[in-house]
Amino acid sequence: MTRTNDIAHLDLWRDGTARQSIEDFVHRVTDVASAEFVEVPSRVAVFDNDGTLWPEKPLPVELIFILDRFAALARDEPAMGERHPWKAALTGDVDWLTELAWKHCQGDDRDLQVLVNAITETFAGMPVDEYERVAKDFIHRAEHPVLRRRLFDCSYAPMVSLMRYLEAHGFSIYVASGGDRDFMRVFIEDLCGIPAGHLIGRASALRFASDDGDSVAYLANPHAFDDGLVKPTRIWSQIGRRPILAFGNSDGDIEMLQFAGGRLRPGLRLVLRHDDPLREFSYMAGSSHVLDTADSKGWTIVSMKDDWERIFPGEQPGIDGVAPVDAQSTPSVPRNVS
Amino acid sequence: MTRTNDIAHLDLWRDGTARQSIEDFVHRVTDVASAEFVEVPSRVAVFDNDGTLWPEKPLPVELIFILDRFAALARDEPAMGERHPWKAALTGDVDWLTELAWKHCQGDDRDLQVLVNAITETFAGMPVDEYERVAKDFIHRAEHPVLRRRLFDCSYAPMVSLMRYLEAHGFSIYVASGGDRDFMRVFIEDLCGIPAGHLIGRASALRFASDDGDSVAYLANPHAFDDGLVKPTRIWSQIGRRPILAFGNSDGDIEMLQFAGGRLRPGLRLVLRHDDPLREFSYMAGSSHVLDTADSKGWTIVSMKDDWERIFPGEQPGIDGVAPVDAQSTPSVPRNVS
Repeated sequence: MTRTNDIAHLDLWRDGTARQSIEDFVHRVTDVASAEFVEVPSRVAVFDNDGTLWPEKPLPVELIFILDRFAALARDEPAMGERHPWKAALTGDVDWLTELAWKHCQGDDRDLQVLVNAITETFAGMPVDEYERVAKDFIHRAEHPVLRRRLFDCSYAPMVSLMRYLEAHGFSIYVASGGDRDFMRVFIEDLCGIPAGHLIGRASALRFASDDGDSVAYLANPHAFDDGLVKPTRIWSQIGRRPILAFGNSDGDIEMLQFAGGRLRPGLRLVLRHDDPLREFSYMAGSSHVLDTADSKGWTIVSMKDDWERIFPGEQPGIDGVAPVDAQSTPSVPRNVS
Repeated sequence: MTRTNDIAHLDLWRDGTARQSIEDFVHRVTDVASAEFVEVPSRVAVFDNDGTLWPEKPLPVELIFILDRFAALARDEPAMGERHPWKAALTGDVDWLTELAWKHCQGDDRDLQVLVNAITETFAGMPVDEYERVAKDFIHRAEHPVLRRRLFDCSYAPMVSLMRYLEAHGFSIYVASGGDRDFMRVFIEDLCGIPAGHLIGRASALRFASDDGDSVAYLANPHAFDDGLVKPTRIWSQIGRRPILAFGNSDGDIEMLQFAGGRLRPGLRLVLRHDDPLREFSYMAGSSHVLDTADSKGWTIVSMKDDWERIFPGEQPGIDGVAPVDAQSTPSVPRNVS
């Protein structure tokens, strides 16, 4: 396998056009002799979260957390458990939520709004530090319902490797997601080394209460829904620079991908294709437009199946005789690594 | 003079209670044996901008820039020049603006709203990259109207020294100001080494226009006015951590100062007092509440006159025979530096 002589390898990526396009781009923007050289402060990369850094199937992890909270609340107040979304949470009926996600992809956001309102109500008045405690408690005890791994072992290892590779080449990495900003903050640093201040996401409005321990608490109304057309504006607000690299996986990422680069600087747009039913999931729902757009505009499509040597972080071969765990379907098949 | 043995000195600060309280605090939160030890990711410090990092008298620099734009517009369209604020800009009548600032301190924001609306209108529709170009052009050619220094030589040198000292001790520094976020972005990195993504400030709403070069442009309505009670919520939104150190100078900084620390962690609150008419300015307008609060709560007051060896960055003594320029009133008096 060809390796670059750079200080950091783009590890876990198989040779192919995807890896080549990343390495070529990084070379072009970091080589001072290149016509497309970009100074370090402008080497900004943005990544979507759910489905780009870790799985979003069967449900986004944030929803699993919300259901966990709803179920706890409905157990305390049985009357709540008689209507959605608390009912779905209490009975483990994920159909309502799966359907909600499908409807969202079709442009029907009514059930989503019911859910968003319930979420907002649930956390209204809660100080941000208290939310952090509750969410941290969940994320440290939960495992993925299908993959049967700790959530912290569900990051896509090649994406983490890509982040480190970009950082080694002077890039600043931000995560820009339609998911809840403060929820991402409790795990994203442990999951892939991105600090809380580098997160852009959905948020409830906030209020400073000097009469209540000088704390900041959530209000009962949303402040920002961070998807589609809104994503580039939120990226600008937070970073103050136009990214030159963007990596997403769903239709809500199209505008973020378009925003990368621009007239003055080169841009690399990457779209992750979930096409690996053995090691992760295979689906097109919510991604068909972005994959079509990628095809027509010549953006780089990354195939989980073909481009990644491994999906999830696993034990290294040879250490304590433990074989790498690359896929839930083949947990005990040792691989030869030369 | 006593110096710590730390890797970075708190340079340009005279011995005294202010310097001592900073050095003691930094020691307490960075010493692993201390009961108040704070892990590196939580060592967050926030600084106000105007009047804290550089002068805000006779007008905040942002207003000088706005007047410069207004005058240019009124020269192109004489009808505009017949009413405020374009009239004030064209005729150089700063009284209207000084009065506006005074009224703001008294809680009367009607003229301020006229001004804010005019600013919003002026930049509505302008892509963020174009604004950046215009603001950069101004900031690189302008000098301070009273101090007669390049704006880039108007940063308070001891504040820049404090930022480097804190960074050397694992702190992340953010600037949280009521001033315009995107305006600060064009100079704050050159002025005091803080990157664009570490700025929190007032902002216009934004729109992504995929039909217009995939650019982000300003809308004609404000998105956030970042002062007083709003400051802690904006700090949380951007950073996702509660600062443990806050440094301000005006009444709009009170809540930001209150927010520092909290129940779980120690906090240091610093208030800059403008009491040096020879080297900078001496005034209490807009600061009397924060200074009273500091007195009653035991926050640390920093006196520009007593606590700072130097105010502005100047030539080093002995280099090319140029004496240090410490004060506009004594531009050519050499100092003895042992």
